[in-house]
Amino acid sequence: MDNIQIIALAASLLSLLFAVFLTRNVLSHDTGNDQVKFIGKAIQNGAMAFLSREYRVLAIFVLVVAVVIAALIDFDLLGRMPNGATDSGIPQTAIAYLVGAVGSGLAGFIGMSIAVRANTRTAVAAQNKENGLNAGLRVAFNSGAVMGVSVVGIALLGVTLMFVAFTDASIVAGFGFGASSIALFARVGGGIYTKAADVGADLVGKVEQGIPEDDPRNPATIADNVGDNVGDVAGMGADLFESYVGSIIATVALAAAGASTLSTGESELILFPLLVSSIGIDASIIGTFLVRTGEGASMGRLLWSLRIGIFSSGALVLIGTAAAILLLELDFNLFWVVLVGLVAGQLIGTASEYYTSYEYSPTRKLAEQAETGPATIMIGGLGLGMVSTVIPGLVVIVAMYAAYQLADLYGVALAAVGMLSTLGITLATDAYGPVADNAGGIAEQAGMDPDVRERTDALDSLGNTTAATGKGFAIGSAVLTALALMAAYSNTVNVSVFNIMDLNVMMGLIIGSITPFLFSALTMQAVGRAAYEMVQEVRRQFREITGLMEGTAEADYARAVDISTRSAMREMILPGIIAIAVPIVVGVVLGPEALGGVLIGSIATGFLFAIMMANAGGAWDNAKKYIEAGNVGGKGSEQHSAAVVGDTVGDPFKDTSGPALNILLKLMTIVALVFGPLFIG
Amino acid sequence: MDNIQIIALAASLLSLLFAVFLTRNVLSHDTGNDQVKFIGKAIQNGAMAFLSREYRVLAIFVLVVAVVIAALIDFDLLGRMPNGATDSGIPQTAIAYLVGAVGSGLAGFIGMSIAVRANTRTAVAAQNKENGLNAGLRVAFNSGAVMGVSVVGIALLGVTLMFVAFTDASIVAGFGFGASSIALFARVGGGIYTKAADVGADLVGKVEQGIPEDDPRNPATIADNVGDNVGDVAGMGADLFESYVGSIIATVALAAAGASTLSTGESELILFPLLVSSIGIDASIIGTFLVRTGEGASMGRLLWSLRIGIFSSGALVLIGTAAAILLLELDFNLFWVVLVGLVAGQLIGTASEYYTSYEYSPTRKLAEQAETGPATIMIGGLGLGMVSTVIPGLVVIVAMYAAYQLADLYGVALAAVGMLSTLGITLATDAYGPVADNAGGIAEQAGMDPDVRERTDALDSLGNTTAATGKGFAIGSAVLTALALMAAYSNTVNVSVFNIMDLNVMMGLIIGSITPFLFSALTMQAVGRAAYEMVQEVRRQFREITGLMEGTAEADYARAVDISTRSAMREMILPGIIAIAVPIVVGVVLGPEALGGVLIGSIATGFLFAIMMANAGGAWDNAKKYIEAGNVGGKGSEQHSAAVVGDTVGDPFKDTSGPALNILLKLMTIVALVFGPLFIG
Repeated sequence: MDNIQIIALAASLLSLLFAVFLTRNVLSHDTGNDQVKFIGKAIQNGAMAFLSREYRVLAIFVLVVAVVIAALIDFDLLGRMPNGATDSGIPQTAIAYLVGAVGSGLAGFIGMSIAVRANTRTAVAAQNKENGLNAGLRVAFNSGAVMGVSVVGIALLGVTLMFVAFTDASIVAGFGFGASSIALFARVGGGIYTKAADVGADLVGKVEQGIPEDDPRNPATIADNVGDNVGDVAGMGADLFESYVGSIIATVALAAAGASTLSTGESELILFPLLVSSIGIDASIIGTFLVRTGEGASMGRLLWSLRIGIFSSGALVLIGTAAAILLLELDFNLFWVVLVGLVAGQLIGTASEYYTSYEYSPTRKLAEQAETGPATIMIGGLGLGMVSTVIPGLVVIVAMYAAYQLADLYGVALAAVGMLSTLGITLATDAYGPVADNAGGIAEQAGMDPDVRERTDALDSLGNTTAATGKGFAIGSAVLTALALMAAYSNTVNVSVFNIMDLNVMMGLIIGSITPFLFSALTMQAVGRAAYEMVQEVRRQFREITGLMEGTAEADYARAVDISTRSAMREMILPGIIAIAVPIVVGVVLGPEALGGVLIGSIATGFLFAIMMANAGGAWDNAKKYIEAGNVGGKGSEQHSAAVVGDTVGDPFKDTSGPALNILLKLMTIVALVFGPLFIG
Repeated sequence: MDNIQIIALAASLLSLLFAVFLTRNVLSHDTGNDQVKFIGKAIQNGAMAFLSREYRVLAIFVLVVAVVIAALIDFDLLGRMPNGATDSGIPQTAIAYLVGAVGSGLAGFIGMSIAVRANTRTAVAAQNKENGLNAGLRVAFNSGAVMGVSVVGIALLGVTLMFVAFTDASIVAGFGFGASSIALFARVGGGIYTKAADVGADLVGKVEQGIPEDDPRNPATIADNVGDNVGDVAGMGADLFESYVGSIIATVALAAAGASTLSTGESELILFPLLVSSIGIDASIIGTFLVRTGEGASMGRLLWSLRIGIFSSGALVLIGTAAAILLLELDFNLFWVVLVGLVAGQLIGTASEYYTSYEYSPTRKLAEQAETGPATIMIGGLGLGMVSTVIPGLVVIVAMYAAYQLADLYGVALAAVGMLSTLGITLATDAYGPVADNAGGIAEQAGMDPDVRERTDALDSLGNTTAATGKGFAIGSAVLTALALMAAYSNTVNVSVFNIMDLNVMMGLIIGSITPFLFSALTMQAVGRAAYEMVQEVRRQFREITGLMEGTAEADYARAVDISTRSAMREMILPGIIAIAVPIVVGVVLGPEALGGVLIGSIATGFLFAIMMANAGGAWDNAKKYIEAGNVGGKGSEQHSAAVVGDTVGDPFKDTSGPALNILLKLMTIVALVFGPLFIG
């Protein structure tokens, strides 16, 4: 084993140890009175019920795919693999696939287990009159950090072990495929779950019955809380787990391309991404200690406290990378590539923030369009989402160009690794949001002092901003990773020219462009159907349970949870199959060149579509919040109702369909990478 | 001059003669009483005021571009043209450009002049108790047919004369560029005009003041009527003029590719598209005579009467083409290509109809989603629009594949010619819609018998269906034309390989994918701004003109018309400049390979985006109509209000941004084709 591999294993183990430390810290906090405990328990149970159902479904799926991989790739039963069946007699790719799936599932499980325990504790901590804001922030952020460091720890551990065991990047790609499979279902299933519950709760509770959000009388309120965890915590974690792993695999696969232009040899370039990731883990851990705030902090101050953590980590990564490069006498261009990746990630995140935060004019202007009703705020939001694709699109182009000039295609992949190097902390700021959101809900449901809700609301607002940045970041890293994986695919199938004027490539490209539309349609419609079922159930409970509205009888939360769970399980299948089937069918029928067209078509279109949806959704959400803060008519006005419509449409945009596209891009490329050899000749 | 060129000139002159015949027929109808005359005059004046303002702006633009073309292309002042400056000393490409621009402008002018005269006559004809439905249909349809045959007549005349004069397809491409320039502004300007008026009229009139649509008290009602003509008649005409011309030019340019696989020589293949178009013109003229219906006809019967015309024309084209091929002893594959094009056009149109007509389940289900409010019908409509891209996408892929197998890239271009061969009549069924729509408005404003409105409503419903089919058809033909023009571009710049793995091509592809998003955002936001101004003006009039609501004072229609006109002029500039600047900037900075990437990126993404917008918009519109017909709660219900929101959002989707994308695709490719030689080396 190489020294750098040992460093990577050490860093990942450190990361997991730190996760244990943070977990103990979070769990040491008070869980509140019986009512808070009851609510917390209900959310925990709902979340675990969902995860166990989901994982059972996925276990079957993963096993079937593993058998297919073992048969077609490892044992080459079709006799189509260029190098024939594996010599060792061990189904290496299938094993890597299983490990990747289990690793991703495990990271999601850990992140969620702690998130659902942290939300009550955050609410309780926020009760402290002296320093409730900081205490709440610490609990919520630490629980997010558990997710962050678990994801990077397990991912780096897994991918390093796979390289130690199998060496060959095309086998380790199986690990990425496993992670992708879980990510797809976690994102799509979680996204459907959370929005069915959210939309269902809002439409009947807020609109029809006129009771506040998170009111305990609303039967869907627990499902709504659970949804934040399964969608935004587990889904986001699995998504970025996949990007993290995918970018490392792609970099390794493209090491030869890098060696042709850099003064560093291929063997060092193969190890370099592990080194950057290791440095990033250490930097992230240090960064988490810097996140703290004083009481009565403004929104800007709160945001700044998170940013200090992120920026410090970024700076540490750069310092560490520069030092390592000088020490190991590697090509200094590698440093610039990492810098390009980090900066590009920040720029894309900042662009998302600009378009979706009501601190800036786009969202404020959007809120003003509520003056003329729901139709104009819809038009405005869609327009905002579309125009917001331009900056991230150009950033990706420029980053790609710079990284390519510095280190050929290897640079493009390494830029993604650089972008994701501080994932431990960026994901923490992201996963923190739903915990704070839930804490607010719990404060409401448990009838805590209004002060508490005020503090959790401040934490939640912050969470919305970090969620928007996080989404931009997730998409940006997904597209760079996918482009890098596509380059690796080109190597694997030994096709260096995908000519657009070749009819097959052109057809593939159009097919690829169609997939994000189809995929988004299916997920949108799934949310529509699931929400409709939820609406029926909530209406039924209000109708049939006497005393529910008066607060003398209790809602049947479990049934609402069950409906969301079942809908999510049922609805995630078709989009999942399409994402895996399209590249395989095109590869078999039209060949590897056409498949290259599919990949680039889906990446280009899906990337922009994902940003459009994420930013339109975020802007509608915050336009509503801006109005609720007393602007443009304020809460309860006509304008507010119009903004609620925008927000409701934005929910599946930003939390289901948009993020699911990230996975679609990556999954399709990694399917192409794993099965590519079968399509040759 | 070749015999086929003579045939083409004869066919185009016949077409123009037929336009004169139809015009006389339409004008021979009664123009009604003084009130009807007054309204008709107001619409005419408004439309002509818009056109004259628009054409004055365009004249400057066109002259500037012509000078640029003459300087850079014809006289080669930069010394970059492969063959140097023109030998003849005549700025041929610039002349072709001017002729194309004038031709497209002329066709729009003719179509609109007759449409604004036909609407009052249609309303008056529909007053006939005996056969008002058929009489109304004939007047409206004949006026649409004037547009149809004028477009094909002028287009074929122009393009044939250009080929006679200049021979070289790359010079005649200037003609296409001229047509494109006008089309862009006509579509974008007209689209902004019509939706500003429509949304403005609806938001204040229907929603705030509670007066019916087309109520004469609404100050924006005349502007709304004018808008139907400038957007749907002149805009659509210019759009398809461009496709018609573009597909012929592309086919001619690709004749060499065709000759390499067909048993027919290049010189015949150059003339063949003119022959198909000539046959198509004759077939369309014959088809128009078959459109008639009996009194009290059902929707199905009315639709059938239009279809008889279209299908008969299609059959005649096939018979004529087969006969011509046998007679001239050409390769019979050419027949199959024309068939592929015709069938593909019908399939795409039918798919649009399926997704947007309330005769079918998608729109009915969408209407039901109004049960849970505006948010769910918005989500449903967006999902419907996305999923509706799949069939047209696959049809284009299959058609492209089949055409390519039959006759190489020449086949792809010829399929577009085949698809558009019966444009004379398909455009007639399309341009007929706004006339019927206007007739209904006039019947309302002039206080005609409710029977009349019932008949015009039947004609209008039919118009909505044909408009949806027409939009699908326009997009389908645009994408085939653009793909063919792109192949011609590849020849012109002498680059046969656009490799996706080449960084420049990849960057270009992402830039190309961004443009439809940016372009749509700009047009959507333009409609938002223009509608906002209109709302302010209408509100002002209701506030300041005493007696307006009581009907004792008259609204200031002219000011509303003026606002729409000015907004349209102002807002069409930026999107127009982007469409022309993007390919030129990329060509200069990143080179011809990257520009190829831009083209395919914009075609693939823009095509699907356009369909999504057109079909979502159409479905929302018809879901509202379905509810108004007494379903899902009926008119005036909560569900109806929800559907109105959907319809309002759908308006700029289907009538501004979506259709404008057709032009964007074609304009960018033709700019690349014309300026391509400058980017070589």
